Amino acid sequence: MTPDDHLAEIARKRALIGDLEREILEHRRGAGEKPGISPFAPEAFPDLPAVAGVRFSAANAAVRYTTGRLDVMLAAVDAGSVIAGTFTRSSTRAAPVLWCEQRISAMAGAASQDPLAILVNAGNANAFTGSNGIDAVQTAVAATGDALGIPAGNVFMASTGVIGELLPSERITAKLKDLVSELSPTALEPAARAIMTTDTFPKGASAVAAIDGAPVTISGFAKGSGMIAPDMATMLVFIFTDARIDGILLQRTLSALTDQSFNAITVDSDTSTSDTLLVAATCMAANEPILSESDPGFPVFRDALLDVMQRLAQQVVKDGEGASKFAAITVSGAADDGAARRIGLAVANSPLVKTALAGEDPNWGRIVMAVGKSGEEANRDRLGIRFGDTTVASGGWVDPGYTEEAGAAYMTRSEIEIGIDVGVGTGRSTVWTCDLTHGYITINADYRS
Amino acid sequence: MTPDDHLAEIARKRALIGDLEREILEHRRGAGEKPGISPFAPEAFPDLPAVAGVRFSAANAAVRYTTGRLDVMLAAVDAGSVIAGTFTRSSTRAAPVLWCEQRISAMAGAASQDPLAILVNAGNANAFTGSNGIDAVQTAVAATGDALGIPAGNVFMASTGVIGELLPSERITAKLKDLVSELSPTALEPAARAIMTTDTFPKGASAVAAIDGAPVTISGFAKGSGMIAPDMATMLVFIFTDARIDGILLQRTLSALTDQSFNAITVDSDTSTSDTLLVAATCMAANEPILSESDPGFPVFRDALLDVMQRLAQQVVKDGEGASKFAAITVSGAADDGAARRIGLAVANSPLVKTALAGEDPNWGRIVMAVGKSGEEANRDRLGIRFGDTTVASGGWVDPGYTEEAGAAYMTRSEIEIGIDVGVGTGRSTVWTCDLTHGYITINADYRS
Repeated sequence: MTPDDHLAEIARKRALIGDLEREILEHRRGAGEKPGISPFAPEAFPDLPAVAGVRFSAANAAVRYTTGRLDVMLAAVDAGSVIAGTFTRSSTRAAPVLWCEQRISAMAGAASQDPLAILVNAGNANAFTGSNGIDAVQTAVAATGDALGIPAGNVFMASTGVIGELLPSERITAKLKDLVSELSPTALEPAARAIMTTDTFPKGASAVAAIDGAPVTISGFAKGSGMIAPDMATMLVFIFTDARIDGILLQRTLSALTDQSFNAITVDSDTSTSDTLLVAATCMAANEPILSESDPGFPVFRDALLDVMQRLAQQVVKDGEGASKFAAITVSGAADDGAARRIGLAVANSPLVKTALAGEDPNWGRIVMAVGKSGEEANRDRLGIRFGDTTVASGGWVDPGYTEEAGAAYMTRSEIEIGIDVGVGTGRSTVWTCDLTHGYITINADYRS
Repeated sequence: MTPDDHLAEIARKRALIGDLEREILEHRRGAGEKPGISPFAPEAFPDLPAVAGVRFSAANAAVRYTTGRLDVMLAAVDAGSVIAGTFTRSSTRAAPVLWCEQRISAMAGAASQDPLAILVNAGNANAFTGSNGIDAVQTAVAATGDALGIPAGNVFMASTGVIGELLPSERITAKLKDLVSELSPTALEPAARAIMTTDTFPKGASAVAAIDGAPVTISGFAKGSGMIAPDMATMLVFIFTDARIDGILLQRTLSALTDQSFNAITVDSDTSTSDTLLVAATCMAANEPILSESDPGFPVFRDALLDVMQRLAQQVVKDGEGASKFAAITVSGAADDGAARRIGLAVANSPLVKTALAGEDPNWGRIVMAVGKSGEEANRDRLGIRFGDTTVASGGWVDPGYTEEAGAAYMTRSEIEIGIDVGVGTGRSTVWTCDLTHGYITINADYRS
């Protein structure tokens, strides 16, 4: 064979591998009897309760997708609401993120005299588009404000999709009349579907808590971790509640809970330019206003919000590209909770750990390696590792009762729990991740943009 | 089909993918006409010059491999030498690393009254083995000291291979008599081969510099980035020179140059428990003693040493698992050189960038994303990106002269240069990496340990 023949054969065999990967995906779907979606997808979108004062609509604006799928969503939130947000820390944040940060900052937690709105498009991230990107946001929020009769500054915006291409905002604004006329309190599922890019299922979660004897509702949806060249994983999350809560307290609470939910998940360690999480509270429930952490209603609300946030975050991981395993990694005995989380993320992001999960390989040596590389304090001679309830290592060496067979049997599960005690202090944290499979490579390398 | 049938089909197709991956590797080898080795491997091990005062030997001690391959090497360095070292920063460092750190510290750069020795084994990393691991090192270095007639404290040790298993030090010590009797100044290639684990080629580099009119020789070899379950990537590097240089200066220089070589490469962001770099100087050359950075011979020696270190480091990346592309990523315009390197490593470690390289996809959006996630300052509106000499983006948006075709054509090369200017300051750094391919997944996930 000539070198060119070899290269042709390599190309042919790569194509065969792509075919096999797709067939494997089909088998998985067949085996799970859930055609077209992740093996972890729920049977159906959850029945999210409406939130007093919030309405949704969705439309097909053909921002990028030509299949007629929903790609724009509008949420309208009544006057008197407060809104809080957390955003990507990327230094190359997209134009809509800069806009939202500025608006959250300007509102400073005060209840809004006018209604609020959130406009989201899929198909174009409006990132790395220079000053034109800022202009596109201004155009879209001004038009949305006009259509709703509210100030442009009350309109939040998020975009997800290709980067480096100018957002065709005119395609979005052309749909505003329809979007406004179709607003409905129960249209959460179409809204959740409209913000998807390559997600294989829409992600929703809700909770109803009793605060001061009054029902308080929290409903939210998210998209994320589906990527296809040249898109990238953007996580967008929108949560709505009727709780009566102070806006500054809501922002402070949201930041703290993000650390225990969306900042505790990783698919591949890559951070989007567009990650956006907004929580709006309409203050229409009958609970006593929650004004500080010491109010009796606060812990009830906080726990319910965290529950919704964690369930949405876990759905993002379970829809990670090529994911065949879901893993919860709990680190204990760290110097503090932050150190525990950094160790957990070092393990969760390690390609060697993630490929071991994919291969159902109880390779605890890779966990030791990842703990060591985290940069955080760990006592090598007190390190302990568990797979579920099975003690793998303790006191810095493999446990005498551990057998490779027990570890291998555990690793065949689709949901894996790994416990790591680093023997230093009382810090503790759980992070969630998925495995690294041929599917990830196929999605991200095999198809040229 | 029943769910079990689907699972059986998935297993069968995964096996087919493994076969195809192996066939692709064969084609690559065929295309490159270098059977059995990485597409980047040199035609032959370089002809490394002997270094006055240094002798080598290698043996098969069957530490783990049963194929009769060399797996133990001994280097003997004459009295009057100085030695410097840098080591993994992992908090789960292996027993031999702890030993070497302690010995380097105790010697404090002083010229040794007795000869020095370096004993290395492949097949077992003696990591995560508790106090038994320390005992195994003590046994091995004591026996080596006895065999050479030198203090045990003058014997350095490094181990690479499986972790969590006790090192069978008796198999190594049984070979000491042979190792000592066969020591030879020219046996660098067998020594380089004996420290390999799953490396596909031995890695060597040398330089001869004229200092004060006298030839000064530097010869070194390395292993690394070959991993196979449950081994992990350990980088071991041993460099020898006859330069007359102060030991404290040598240590200081080594630490600085490591940042520009071995700390500037990454295959998959995972850090071994065993990384060890030792440089011994026998001080037998005729150069004027180099005692400080201001001595005229210093920059000549430093540049020659850096050249050897960079060429070894690049060979480690080129032998990375599944590597089909080699990429040099140069970041300029950063706040300082350290910031430039952290940005470069964020790009080099990004799974999305690495899969784009594998897919020959000129996906500069993923580079923007990785710059953003680095945590370092970058000016989004002044960001520039180059592929080789092609300007891809400038001033925060895609360059008007850039075409996707030009980018795609460049990406078909096997050695890629990516330039990134973040528009903030004058910091600059180059890092080297390889792509992330199905081959990596196959090696690390598809074969159970």
